[in-house]
Amino acid sequence: MSAKKAELVANWETLQRIFIRPEDEASRRTLIKYMEQILFGLHEFLRQHVGITREASLEDLSERFKESLIADHPQKKLAEVIRGIIENIAPHAVNVASPYFIGHMTSAIPFFMVHLHTITAALNQNVVKIETSKVVSIIERQVLAKLHRLIFGKSEAFYDLHIQAPDSTLGGFLDDGTLANITAMWVARNRCFPAKDGFPGIEAEGVAAAHRAYGADRSVILVSGLAHYSLRKAGGVLGIGSGNVIPVPSAGNPRMDPARLEAAIRALRSAEPRTQILAAVAIAGATETGTIDPLAEIAEICARENIHFHVDAAWGGPTLLSPRYRGLLAGIERADSVTIDGHKQFYMPMGCGMVLFRDPGIMDTIAYHAAYINRPGSVDLGIRSLEGSRPASSLVLAGALEIMGAQGYALLIDHGIETARAFADEIGRRPLFELVTPPQLNILTYRIVPEEIQRKWTAAGPEERKNLARRLNDLNIAVQRIQREAGNSFVSRTTLRHLGEDVVVLRAVLMNPMTHMGILCDILDEQEQIYHGHPELAA
Amino acid sequence: MSAKKAELVANWETLQRIFIRPEDEASRRTLIKYMEQILFGLHEFLRQHVGITREASLEDLSERFKESLIADHPQKKLAEVIRGIIENIAPHAVNVASPYFIGHMTSAIPFFMVHLHTITAALNQNVVKIETSKVVSIIERQVLAKLHRLIFGKSEAFYDLHIQAPDSTLGGFLDDGTLANITAMWVARNRCFPAKDGFPGIEAEGVAAAHRAYGADRSVILVSGLAHYSLRKAGGVLGIGSGNVIPVPSAGNPRMDPARLEAAIRALRSAEPRTQILAAVAIAGATETGTIDPLAEIAEICARENIHFHVDAAWGGPTLLSPRYRGLLAGIERADSVTIDGHKQFYMPMGCGMVLFRDPGIMDTIAYHAAYINRPGSVDLGIRSLEGSRPASSLVLAGALEIMGAQGYALLIDHGIETARAFADEIGRRPLFELVTPPQLNILTYRIVPEEIQRKWTAAGPEERKNLARRLNDLNIAVQRIQREAGNSFVSRTTLRHLGEDVVVLRAVLMNPMTHMGILCDILDEQEQIYHGHPELAA
Repeated sequence: MSAKKAELVANWETLQRIFIRPEDEASRRTLIKYMEQILFGLHEFLRQHVGITREASLEDLSERFKESLIADHPQKKLAEVIRGIIENIAPHAVNVASPYFIGHMTSAIPFFMVHLHTITAALNQNVVKIETSKVVSIIERQVLAKLHRLIFGKSEAFYDLHIQAPDSTLGGFLDDGTLANITAMWVARNRCFPAKDGFPGIEAEGVAAAHRAYGADRSVILVSGLAHYSLRKAGGVLGIGSGNVIPVPSAGNPRMDPARLEAAIRALRSAEPRTQILAAVAIAGATETGTIDPLAEIAEICARENIHFHVDAAWGGPTLLSPRYRGLLAGIERADSVTIDGHKQFYMPMGCGMVLFRDPGIMDTIAYHAAYINRPGSVDLGIRSLEGSRPASSLVLAGALEIMGAQGYALLIDHGIETARAFADEIGRRPLFELVTPPQLNILTYRIVPEEIQRKWTAAGPEERKNLARRLNDLNIAVQRIQREAGNSFVSRTTLRHLGEDVVVLRAVLMNPMTHMGILCDILDEQEQIYHGHPELAA
Repeated sequence: MSAKKAELVANWETLQRIFIRPEDEASRRTLIKYMEQILFGLHEFLRQHVGITREASLEDLSERFKESLIADHPQKKLAEVIRGIIENIAPHAVNVASPYFIGHMTSAIPFFMVHLHTITAALNQNVVKIETSKVVSIIERQVLAKLHRLIFGKSEAFYDLHIQAPDSTLGGFLDDGTLANITAMWVARNRCFPAKDGFPGIEAEGVAAAHRAYGADRSVILVSGLAHYSLRKAGGVLGIGSGNVIPVPSAGNPRMDPARLEAAIRALRSAEPRTQILAAVAIAGATETGTIDPLAEIAEICARENIHFHVDAAWGGPTLLSPRYRGLLAGIERADSVTIDGHKQFYMPMGCGMVLFRDPGIMDTIAYHAAYINRPGSVDLGIRSLEGSRPASSLVLAGALEIMGAQGYALLIDHGIETARAFADEIGRRPLFELVTPPQLNILTYRIVPEEIQRKWTAAGPEERKNLARRLNDLNIAVQRIQREAGNSFVSRTTLRHLGEDVVVLRAVLMNPMTHMGILCDILDEQEQIYHGHPELAA
């Protein structure tokens, strides 16, 4: 360890210096230069790589990061850490910003988002309580009201009343959509087993005692067949049981069938009168297919049956900003709770989830107080929240809404949906491919189905068809892997229930505004080349 | 709306531009200038304000943020948003970086943290899965191993084996300590009710079914008397019941009494054989007093009684980096799980929590899979995690550990503890004050006790004492409020159980390295002045 390297924090004086913004011009220049490297250096490097590159396998990379001791002395200065990230880390990270990266719900973000994100650290407010955030908590409430109005469209008077009222809670920010869904199910669970004579409520007493107090044997949540796995997790976490999160079968397409939801409710209520239905969950923008459940019809059933209706719009929520496509989500205004992610179609950096509740008093069922913060009657946002200390992600969204306006977001939403439709047409034009789920929003799935297998399929018996189905799945898995490893582009894969079979599909998420049809044709071309270049794959 | 303002995203071309890092020098200069404003402009402004200022009340601020409509057109450019935050928001935010802000666990952070935080947004990796993070997931595993080793100190061979093994999980990153504590209790709950013949386990079936399968009537968690309120919340969320999170009474001081813990376990096991004890939770650095429970003795009891032992070291964990004070946490290496916060004494920006588990297989009890990610056998970090999509906060900690080294952190830890001791001495020297809880780490509580009330107390009967106690509490509430509203400094307040009474105390958290004794004397001087300047307060 050279003396020079240890200089930064070897003693108290140098340590203190890193806590004070420097006054001298030279030091300020240096700090700004580092920011320049972060803003531009990272992206210069990434330009060459889409993602999972062939050069370094996970195994090789794993071998490089096996140091479990925290070094005693400082090892690097900030400049070296930044250079290390630019030169050694970024090239082996995933270039989610590439227009050729269409496999997941992570994409390029507007560069102003990086600035806004930096502000949250520079201010370092903790929005758990007003004493460490003040106006920032108030701004968070305003942003939540804007989203609430976008979804539920209540009256001006409603928002005037609730927007800054300490006792009203229109929703909350969380780190992601999983936590938002858990929060919604937590509230739904508590609503079903409130305090009553001689019983202090499920939150205080737990699920077993609540079941005893209300004569229930089990609690269930009915979900869309394509519900995000966080709903199962919510069931597990909340003590309901992940196995009691029951998918309602769809009717041949990847959307919830309202008739089957109604039948499921009736069946449960007649066959199992001691089963409590906590909630029905629809999805608006399914993770795998981008499909939207028939929200209005489900809302109708839930209202009639008095069941908490949650819409997981983590993906699809911002579609409400598009005058052209917001109708796709009709019925969402009748939901009891809605999840929306900021880091998805609001194009915010990781991680920002939100949950909104139609009723501004409903989150009281999850309120917690402490002696030093979150005192009853205070404005502290931590009172009704799954999380405690939290960053001010709301500042990022507040700024983004001002910079983009609804119109800016609408352009992105419309582009994604229309690009997805054009992509679906292109897939239809190419004989090697089969469109599996057409895009309702900006996500579609397709697969490679060689003509030879198609031909055999028509003539095959059930046993042979099983074989062919397996071959198709293996083929699609292989092509996706080879393309991913080549590192020029990335399409993800998943497994869908399709015509009674488990079908491996390729999945494209069209959210990056730089992704145009030329790029999408390149990606299909590459898949065709991989297929034709590896005759063993179809065997 | 002027044409100029709408320019940024009024059409597709300008919208696309905000997604591409500009190539021309002028645009790059502009983006860098904005970063300069963020890095330095915010702090110029904050220098004048400590926090909750007198000039704008919460009510006045609330009136300014009551717009619930998302504007249709873009309203501002990035430059205007930044200027607005610097000029209109920052002055009404809380200057947690001020050395006079000693009321909460939020302080100045080294400026390099802002750079590292910016990198996470510039790379925008999602560590839920390897396909959107690759090497960054591997780095996260390495950081977790470093913390695991700091706490549990297993052998080199142990870390060689587990550090990058997909099936091993040494812990996880979360948004905060609350989620870390919930995760630990979730695992502890699931360990107690595993799958067995004819029962698929509590995660799948829920708490009520688990109780039936195992012949239990209720589950409880025994916690330190000063446990963070997130433990009660964990009980509520997890379906155990917040009321079944039972504080073990202390023996006159704010630390858990091992004898009483043992007695509580024995009493439960003999009087309520159908009660399952899920975990015992000690705190290492209590939120309110900074005290550390006797970890070694509690570990001994938990081992003997076969109870999951969790240590909430959200605050105190980094003390392990100080050779001088790490002994205060002796016994933590025998914990089953440990919570540590990054945004507390690792001086990271909001929000970063972590949970570490001694047994690298124990997190299997909370594993979830999906078809498109987190497939069995994959390296995806999202498999065993309360959260789904997550930012790469681990990159910030990885960089910070390289820049600071253990020594850098040790200097901060030592300074905090030693400043707190000197502050306690100063409080002892001033007749107006009474030290309530002396600092074991860098947190202490004290209160104002005027001589006149002290004198009356000695002579008073029980009824009069109640009166005097109430007057003391009111006095301390008032002085804290007046000081906070004056905006020069900030000390928090809480209510402690002290000698059988609910006592309002002033609470000081000494983590900012710029906070020295001169400042602390200023703060006490100001409190004395407030007291003497408001004779009505002591009436």
